[in-house]
Amino acid sequence: MLPRIVLCDALLWSQPEAEQLFKGIADVKTVHDSTSRSDFVASLQPGGALEGAIGLYRRTDSPGPLRYFDKQLIDALPPSVKWIASFGAGYDQVDVAACKERGIRVSNTPNMVDDATATTALYLLISALRCFSKAERDIRAGAWKSQHWPGPAHDVTGRTIAILGLGGIGLRFAELVHAFPMRVLYHSRRRVAHAPEWCEYYGPDRLDEMLAQADVLSVHVPLTEQTASIVDEKMIRKLKRGAVIVNTARGGVIDEDAMMKALEDGHLSAVGLDVFCNEPNINPRWFSLPNATLLPHVGTATSDTRKKMELRALENLRDFITTGMGNDLVFEFK
Amino acid sequence: MLPRIVLCDALLWSQPEAEQLFKGIADVKTVHDSTSRSDFVASLQPGGALEGAIGLYRRTDSPGPLRYFDKQLIDALPPSVKWIASFGAGYDQVDVAACKERGIRVSNTPNMVDDATATTALYLLISALRCFSKAERDIRAGAWKSQHWPGPAHDVTGRTIAILGLGGIGLRFAELVHAFPMRVLYHSRRRVAHAPEWCEYYGPDRLDEMLAQADVLSVHVPLTEQTASIVDEKMIRKLKRGAVIVNTARGGVIDEDAMMKALEDGHLSAVGLDVFCNEPNINPRWFSLPNATLLPHVGTATSDTRKKMELRALENLRDFITTGMGNDLVFEFK
Repeated sequence: MLPRIVLCDALLWSQPEAEQLFKGIADVKTVHDSTSRSDFVASLQPGGALEGAIGLYRRTDSPGPLRYFDKQLIDALPPSVKWIASFGAGYDQVDVAACKERGIRVSNTPNMVDDATATTALYLLISALRCFSKAERDIRAGAWKSQHWPGPAHDVTGRTIAILGLGGIGLRFAELVHAFPMRVLYHSRRRVAHAPEWCEYYGPDRLDEMLAQADVLSVHVPLTEQTASIVDEKMIRKLKRGAVIVNTARGGVIDEDAMMKALEDGHLSAVGLDVFCNEPNINPRWFSLPNATLLPHVGTATSDTRKKMELRALENLRDFITTGMGNDLVFEFK
Repeated sequence: MLPRIVLCDALLWSQPEAEQLFKGIADVKTVHDSTSRSDFVASLQPGGALEGAIGLYRRTDSPGPLRYFDKQLIDALPPSVKWIASFGAGYDQVDVAACKERGIRVSNTPNMVDDATATTALYLLISALRCFSKAERDIRAGAWKSQHWPGPAHDVTGRTIAILGLGGIGLRFAELVHAFPMRVLYHSRRRVAHAPEWCEYYGPDRLDEMLAQADVLSVHVPLTEQTASIVDEKMIRKLKRGAVIVNTARGGVIDEDAMMKALEDGHLSAVGLDVFCNEPNINPRWFSLPNATLLPHVGTATSDTRKKMELRALENLRDFITTGMGNDLVFEFK
C-alpha cells in the first residue's frame, strides 16, 4: 500500500504535473476546502476515509475552514501525520510550535514567491514615489491631472532604499531596484554572506543610522513573535520626513496606527501596501488617507508563480516520502 | 544691451539657477501664461515690451493660450526671434515646418525625460501584466480580492517585450526591463548602433515577426505625420492573443478605437496608458474597459525631472546666445 497524502485544497494549477509526481509513490486524496474542521479531523482517524495520512498539503490563501492550522487543529491530528507542506512563503497560519510538539515537520515554498513579490514591491515603490494611485483615481474621476502637482512626486533613480530583512524576497527586490540604480541599505539579524557588495549592511547597532538615510523603507521579514510590530512608532519617526514605506510582507510587522498617523501628519509622504492587519477586514481609514497605494494581498497572484508554488509544495511531500526530508523545512526546524 | 529672451511661462523649479545662468548674458523677460496670443505677438513687435527678443522658452504642458505654437502664431513672430526652446521631449505642439520657413530653430529636452518616462512605462507594464489597477479599484470598493483571479495575471520576468522606437526613452526602458530579465526586441527605422547586444533588432522587413513574439508592445516614438496611428488595427492583430500594450509616448501614435476593440474582444489582455487622443478630454469609454491602467500624462511629472528639464531648455537658449547653437536641436533640423 502506498503512503497516503492529503491535499486540503484542490490543486488549481498543476493537476497533471501532480499526478505524474506521485505516480507509484503516494496515494493522493483531496479534501474539499469547505470541509469542516471536525469532519476533516474525523476522517483522518482510524476507520476514516483518510486514515493513515502521513503528509498534508495546505494553501496559505485557502478560503475555507482549514485556513488556520492552529494548535487546536494540530493537536487533533492523528500521530500518522508527519509533514505539513504549506503553499506560500509566509506560514504564520500554521502553529509551528504546536507542530514541533507533535513531531510534525512543516515546509513552505520560499523561493518560488521571490520574483512575483519583489515585482509587487517595485510596483508599490514606483506608485508611492510618483503618486500614481492618486493620479489614476483623479483621471477616473474626470479631473485629468488638475489635482496632480509634480512637487511631491519623485524619481526612483538615485534614491536610497532601506530593506528590512534580506531573505529571498528582499534580495530579489534589491536586485530590481539596484537596476535603476537606487542605493541599497539593509538590516537583518546578521550580515547576509551571499549579498552582493552593493548591498550595504547595517547591523542592530546601526539601525537608526540606516533609517535616517532612507527615502524608502521596504519590509521583507516574516511575521513571527519577534517581528510583530517591529516597525513601530519609534522606527517610523527615525525615517526622514517625507519618507515612503512599502510592505509586501505581513500587515502585522508594522504598527498600522503609527503608520497612518505618520501619513496623516506628513512625516511619511506615501505608503504602498499589499498587506494589512486583520485581512480581509482591513481598516477602512486606509481608503481616505492621502497618497496610499493599496493592493488586496496579491503579491504572488500570478498563474506563473502559483503553479511554481503549488508544485514546490508537492515536491516537499514527495521528497519527504522518498527520502525522509523535504527541501524547504521552515526556519524553526533548522 | 544684452540679447533678450522671453519665458512664455514662469519657471517653476529653477528660478535661482536660471538667474545665475543668464547673468551678464541675456535680458530675461517672463510672460504670464494667461497672456493672450495677440497681446503676446504685439508685445514682440517694435515698440512692444518684448521688442527684439531673439529666443523664446515654452513649456509642453502650458495650460494657457501659448500652449500651441502653431503656424499662425509662428508666422506672426517678428524676424528677431531665432530660437524656440521647448520644455519636454515631445514637441508636436510646435509647428516645426513653419519654424523652418521662418528661420527659427527649435530645441527640446530629450534626455532629461528618459528616466522618469521609462519608469512610468515600467509601472504601467507591471500594472497591466499583474492586473493591479483593477485590484486597487476592488480593494477600495470593499471587495478585497474576491474579484481577483491569478489566472490572467502574469509575472514580468521571462516575458518578451517589443519596443517600438529605441530613442533615449526606449533605450532607458529597455535597460529597466532587461534587469528582470525580459527578452527585449525592438523596431526602428534603422538599427541603433549604441544599443546593447541583448536588444534584438527587427527591421521593417521583420516587423511582423517581432510582433508575433511579443507579450508586451511598448511605444516610444514621437508623434509626427509619419508615426500618426502607426500602431493600427493590423499591427495590433499581429500581436499574440492576450498581449499587452503600453503607451507613454503620445496618444496619436496608436489607433485608439482599434486598441479599445482589441481590449474588449480579448485580443489584448490589458493596456497601460499615460497618453491619449484628445487630452485632456479623453474618450470616457476608457473608464469602463476591463484591465486598463490609466494615468493623466504624468510620465515626467516629478520635481526632480521637471527641474532637470527646465534647466536644460534654458541651457539651449544660453548656448544659442553664447555659441550660436544649442545642444538639443530637434531632429528636423539635423
